[in-house]
Amino acid sequence: MTTIIDGKATASAIKQELATEVDKILEAGGRRPHLAAILVGHDGGSETYVANKVKACQECGYESTLIRYENDVTQDVLLAKIAELNADPAIDGFIVQLPLPRHIDEQRIIEAIDPAKDVDGFHPVNVGRMSIGLPCFLPATPSGIMELLRRYNVPTDGKRCVVLGRSNIVGKPMAMLMLQKGIPGNATVTVCHSRTPDIKEICQQADIIIAALGVPGFVTADMVKDGVTVIDVGTTRVPDASRKSGFRLSGDVDYANVAPKCAFISPVPGGVGPMTIVSLMRNTLQAYRLTH
Amino acid sequence: MTTIIDGKATASAIKQELATEVDKILEAGGRRPHLAAILVGHDGGSETYVANKVKACQECGYESTLIRYENDVTQDVLLAKIAELNADPAIDGFIVQLPLPRHIDEQRIIEAIDPAKDVDGFHPVNVGRMSIGLPCFLPATPSGIMELLRRYNVPTDGKRCVVLGRSNIVGKPMAMLMLQKGIPGNATVTVCHSRTPDIKEICQQADIIIAALGVPGFVTADMVKDGVTVIDVGTTRVPDASRKSGFRLSGDVDYANVAPKCAFISPVPGGVGPMTIVSLMRNTLQAYRLTH
Repeated sequence: MTTIIDGKATASAIKQELATEVDKILEAGGRRPHLAAILVGHDGGSETYVANKVKACQECGYESTLIRYENDVTQDVLLAKIAELNADPAIDGFIVQLPLPRHIDEQRIIEAIDPAKDVDGFHPVNVGRMSIGLPCFLPATPSGIMELLRRYNVPTDGKRCVVLGRSNIVGKPMAMLMLQKGIPGNATVTVCHSRTPDIKEICQQADIIIAALGVPGFVTADMVKDGVTVIDVGTTRVPDASRKSGFRLSGDVDYANVAPKCAFISPVPGGVGPMTIVSLMRNTLQAYRLTH
Repeated sequence: MTTIIDGKATASAIKQELATEVDKILEAGGRRPHLAAILVGHDGGSETYVANKVKACQECGYESTLIRYENDVTQDVLLAKIAELNADPAIDGFIVQLPLPRHIDEQRIIEAIDPAKDVDGFHPVNVGRMSIGLPCFLPATPSGIMELLRRYNVPTDGKRCVVLGRSNIVGKPMAMLMLQKGIPGNATVTVCHSRTPDIKEICQQADIIIAALGVPGFVTADMVKDGVTVIDVGTTRVPDASRKSGFRLSGDVDYANVAPKCAFISPVPGGVGPMTIVSLMRNTLQAYRLTH
């Protein structure tokens, strides 16, 4: 009996909860949480992501501000805008949509953001505080996965959790969150990556697999045991002539064959994806509360 | 054929290398690196640690300053001293010896230290930068272990590494360093802890075990495979009437029975311990170089 983790429905429910929170804030004389986003250039993926973030703000009753620059914007102009947003009490949190053009030092930009407004959770102060287990802004994707595990009551305490991938925005923070004290958490965590020769054997021992390699269909049925929980973070665009967009999103999991063996599985699309933006919305409310 | 990892000899060699670096700095017209330490109260362990750090400074040709307070020092006094040290160009790095009395907010103290002078590597900025893989001050014990693995050419690429313990100063950073890209690193890392039910089976699969649980003799011969590398971080004081001090240091490993199965093993004492202070010395030189 497989439970399909419905990220879309969960995300909708959370957005409704956040909208209710905003109503309460307004009734109490407060103002709407306000998220700003800086978007450089016209990359299709980035345009879509930012548009979805603006839309989510509307759904939650937040104010949003989109600040656009052309691809030839200088680093100094970006840094000046970041300083302005840092100082602006009307902005609770803001993000700089990545990737940035090559002539911009991305890490310099990230570290220029006031950690108290860094709702993406990419500033080293937030990364460090997460690792230590202190209050902080959690990065969106791992935070969304933790929320799914929490709401679906997926057992994690003492379970073997295998994280596939060691990226800074998914793999590493995911490992940190799963091994932290608490529920969800308290898992025995193994991180596998491109240099791991025996991923199959390791996955076969896992109670929970979090796949974030970006390799379509990597996790196959022979790699998982019965009763496993599989969280699929993969979102690779693969060509698909039958779609209007010309592509479809493919996860890291061979869903059709893996799902029957699972206690819980999150599909792509409709699993982790919708939760990512919701995490940003939760962080924005948290940022508002830090100063109100 | 077991290689015993001689931390004491390695630490001596590194201190000699650092002293040579200092000689070169002085010849080039520079000054000696300068480490300051704040010690509160008269805890026996803390007294010993700080005395050893001062001694290591002498061996490396560094200047050192020890600042002492009684147990009833206020947090404000400590914060004022930290602000003074942060601003003092004659101090390259400094540490506040932990633990602090209960009326002091330890995290507040740690975060007051300028990350550029945080040679203990405990500030969230340094923890976060380490996690992301950016230049930073590494925490002393994990850094010392990485240096031992490097100097003994212990293979880590693609190897299964099991870290026992999830503390902020050893387990978590150790896991992060072992899975980072590079050599040593590129390991498949599993973190086990008090909530892990099947530690024995997990250890039996390990090529490298880093034991940091603080449980004397926890790792026994039946838990390890032939050819394993074992790094023992345990330093529990156990009563020993035959010693003048009344105690001896006990590691987390049943050394006598585990060692014959090992490719490499670090003993207690004389393994990781001496490397810890050397890491602090390396960080202090790095701090000096940041501004010279």
